[in-house]
Order: sequence, then structure tokens, then C-alpha cells
Amino acid sequence: MKLCSFKKDDVASYGLVTDAGIVDLGKRFDAATLRDFLASGQLSEAEALIGAEADYAFDDVIHEPVIPNPDKIICVGLNYHAHIAETGREETPNPVLFARFAGSQIGHNQPLIKPLESDKFDYEGEVAVIIGKEGRRISEADAMDYVAGYACYNDGSVRDWQKHTHQFMPGKTFAGTGGFGPWMTTADEIEDHTKMRLQTRLNGEVMQDTTLDMLVCSIPRLIAYCSTILPLLPGDVLVSGTPGGVGARREPPLFMKDGDVCEIEVSGVGILRNPVVAEA
Amino acid sequence: MKLCSFKKDDVASYGLVTDAGIVDLGKRFDAATLRDFLASGQLSEAEALIGAEADYAFDDVIHEPVIPNPDKIICVGLNYHAHIAETGREETPNPVLFARFAGSQIGHNQPLIKPLESDKFDYEGEVAVIIGKEGRRISEADAMDYVAGYACYNDGSVRDWQKHTHQFMPGKTFAGTGGFGPWMTTADEIEDHTKMRLQTRLNGEVMQDTTLDMLVCSIPRLIAYCSTILPLLPGDVLVSGTPGGVGARREPPLFMKDGDVCEIEVSGVGILRNPVVAEA
Repeated sequence: MKLCSFKKDDVASYGLVTDAGIVDLGKRFDAATLRDFLASGQLSEAEALIGAEADYAFDDVIHEPVIPNPDKIICVGLNYHAHIAETGREETPNPVLFARFAGSQIGHNQPLIKPLESDKFDYEGEVAVIIGKEGRRISEADAMDYVAGYACYNDGSVRDWQKHTHQFMPGKTFAGTGGFGPWMTTADEIEDHTKMRLQTRLNGEVMQDTTLDMLVCSIPRLIAYCSTILPLLPGDVLVSGTPGGVGARREPPLFMKDGDVCEIEVSGVGILRNPVVAEA
Repeated sequence: MKLCSFKKDDVASYGLVTDAGIVDLGKRFDAATLRDFLASGQLSEAEALIGAEADYAFDDVIHEPVIPNPDKIICVGLNYHAHIAETGREETPNPVLFARFAGSQIGHNQPLIKPLESDKFDYEGEVAVIIGKEGRRISEADAMDYVAGYACYNDGSVRDWQKHTHQFMPGKTFAGTGGFGPWMTTADEIEDHTKMRLQTRLNGEVMQDTTLDMLVCSIPRLIAYCSTILPLLPGDVLVSGTPGGVGARREPPLFMKDGDVCEIEVSGVGILRNPVVAEA
């Protein structure tokens, strides 16, 4: 199943994406948001609606971040060898974690905002892992049972603010910089998540290209590590890291500018597409 | 005014703390939480209830974190000269920011949890600044108009996990490590916030002692910087940094253990007291 969050006529809802369009689940279930719906454990009831008549064409809604209101967005830095190499940093035995705030996220087709304060606005294509049930100190062996699904994520980074100090967060949570979409594909549709392919394209040109088996810290290990710290909850988002090829490390550096279009494609999921708009 | 969040008979609410006890505001206003109440702009209507009969004795409720569900908890590292000196780090022209997740917070009198995974559980007494109204790119000149009030914060830190990598977050957001209370004192009661005194006591012994004029990055500058990144919202919490004297930098190092009692006192606010309990 493909599940998305959206607004239609200014009303926030969530739905099932089918070939015919969007089946509005918010109208049919009590849960107010996709996060609440995941927590309610009614995924199988949604499945029965795959053949239902679509309420809206896919392009006839305003797409919201897949989970607009997660309790936690945990981002992973330096989690592909090629990216570690291009940054000149060293590998660490534990994952490099920082946070993004929910208010920085945008949905599919919404503009990625290059802020007034910087000309160093960079893409970071990533696979987002969406948690489906609550757990603490989840073992690596059990971890995949806690995954509700996967989505494309663009961890848009304001590089100069990221480097104001040794802590990355300021450059990682500017308003309008976290692309999250176009939907989540439920885990049952991904036979082997390590074979997922992740590609970033800027104006059609391939900038990043990897498979998930190249992760330094695997998805099960990430879930085990994060859930040791505090409980993971339904709708929590683990943004699993970006591969080599970021703009800041190119020669010469390449940053996103007004009018660009950035796409993140994850095989088995789909394509997240966002235009870049510079704040005036 | 002093405003707190609490549970009574398993029902979450918020109230006005008076000499007689707690006046339950959740019963009297539509807003479901103190965060929503701050956003509703009804503080002056609460003020009219200062003489009202108390609904509960102060000790007859379970205290919750002052704001149990903030949109953002932004913590500031290395923001007092004495603490920078004891860590051996260098001052940075911009604030060192990282996040804590709401699920890691506890209220007054609730146990600070030393996790199974570490024996390096340290206190960090701090002044929490609670935002009262939404704003983006707030100027330093206007910043204090956005402060709803102040509270005591214990940014309990799991030092070994904080140092797993260069990013602090894992050690700063373990479940049960963020003490936030006992209430917030509204900004109108603090004549000059830079004269506030902050003291941390472990088992009655003074561990940290400073005044807020010793901050490297002032409260107005913090508000200006953070609100440049994304909008600050009512109920957002800025945890403004800890002074010198943390346990990890003592000779020999001193960590919190089962049975300890940690108190954070902020002049003009009050005393946040938490027992330390080791997970079994």
C-alpha cells in the first residue's frame, strides 16, 4: 500500500494512493492523521479499500509531508562510506544522530525554500523509515517488525549554518527544507530493504546514486540504537543518511538555486519532486 | 503567575499555582494543555483567578513537565565561559544547538532515570525560556516580548552516549532525563532576567552556581538566532545552557546514582527537585 498525507480544500487528511487517485482514509476512519492511523493498527482495513473509487486525482490535492506531525524525526549523518570519504571525516562505531523539527518539513511538489540567510542550500537524498509500533530497546533481530514503511526524504541542508558550530542541527531544520514524500510504501511491499536503490537528481542530472546495502549503520541497528535512548512511537521518522555526491563536496561546489527541481527516487517507493524557491 | 502542568486521577491538566495550592485551569478554559493555553492568549484571564479557591494541594497531584508536549525543545550547549573552560572547548560566535525530544522530559518530584546502559548520568542545571507567541526572524530588540516565562530545567546527560560521536543528541534525550519544573513563572514577574540566579544542588551540596548575565549567547540573541531557522511557537522551550561545575568535569568525576536527589533552583522561579532512580 501507498499512504500519503494531504490537504484538500484546506482540510488536512490522509489517504491510500491507488492507480486511480487518492482514497480519502480520513473520511472513513476515526484517526485524525496518518500518524494516529498507524498507531490504531488498522492498516489491514485500509487494504480492503484498494479497489475503492478514488476521491481525488493524485495531483488534485496539496501534498503534505508523509507524516506531518511525527513525535521524533531522527536524522543520521555520515552513514555511507562514500559520503564519509568526501567529508574527510572518520567512521564512528555508533550512528551520528541529530534532529529535525516537524515544522521544517514539506510535502511532494511543495517548494524547497532556499532561505534568505544562505546561498549554500544543498540536497541530501535519503530513505526515510517510518515506525509502525511503539518499542523500547528493540533488538536488531526484531527491528524490522517495527517498520511501517519507507518514503523518500530530502534532508535539505543549509551548509553554512550547519557549520556554525560542531552541532549540525541549525543547518538541518530551516523552514521548508525537509522534503518528505510522495507517500510511504508499506514494508510488506519491499521484499529486501537492503536492495532499495536511492537516487537524487537535480534538474534531471543524477547527483547521488546508491543502494541501501551500502549503509554503514543498517536500518535494524539504527532502530535498536535509537530505541535504547527512548521509546520509538508510531509515526516516528528515521532519516537514514545520505550517500556520496552532495553539492557542497563537489568541485566546484554546486548549490540549489531558485528555479531548480530536485528529485529523490527510491526504488519500490516512487519519486519525491520539489521545485526550489529562493525567499525574496 | 506560576503555571504548571499535572495529572490528577490520571487526567492531564494545567493550573495556576497559588499559596493555597493549584487552581485547575484545564477545567475552566477550552485549551487542553498549557501549550494551547499560552497560544490562546488568555493569560490575563487566568490572572483573575489568583484569589480563587485551590482545587488541589500542590503536592496532591502528579507533576508533569511544565510543557509536556512542546513543538520544539532547543538546547544550548557551551553557553557559559566557565563550562566552556572546563570542557576544554573553544567559544563559537554562534550558539551550539541540539534537540531533546519531549518524551525524555519529567516533571517536578518525578524520578530522573539513570539508564541501564550507563553509569555516567550527569546533571546540568539550566534556565528554560518558554516562548509565548509565534514569531520568525525576531529581532534581538523585540525578542523579550516573545518570552512567556521561565522555569528550572535539568538537562540530564548520559555522558558516554553524548560522546559516541561528535553530535550530542543521543546522550541528551534518554527517557526520564529532562527535569522541567516545578512550574513556569511568567515573564512579568522577572524584572531583569539577566539577574536570575541558577543553582544546582546534589544531595544538598552546591554543584553549580551562576547568574544569567554570565551567558555567552544572551536570551534575546538565542531567540533571534533560533527564530531565523524556523518559526518559534507558543510553548517552545529554549534550554539556555549549563554553567561550570558539571559532574563529568570534576576531579574525580561525580555522577548521579540511585537514591540521589538533584535540585535546580532559579531565583524568582523556585526549586525543581527530582530523586534519581537507577533502572533495574
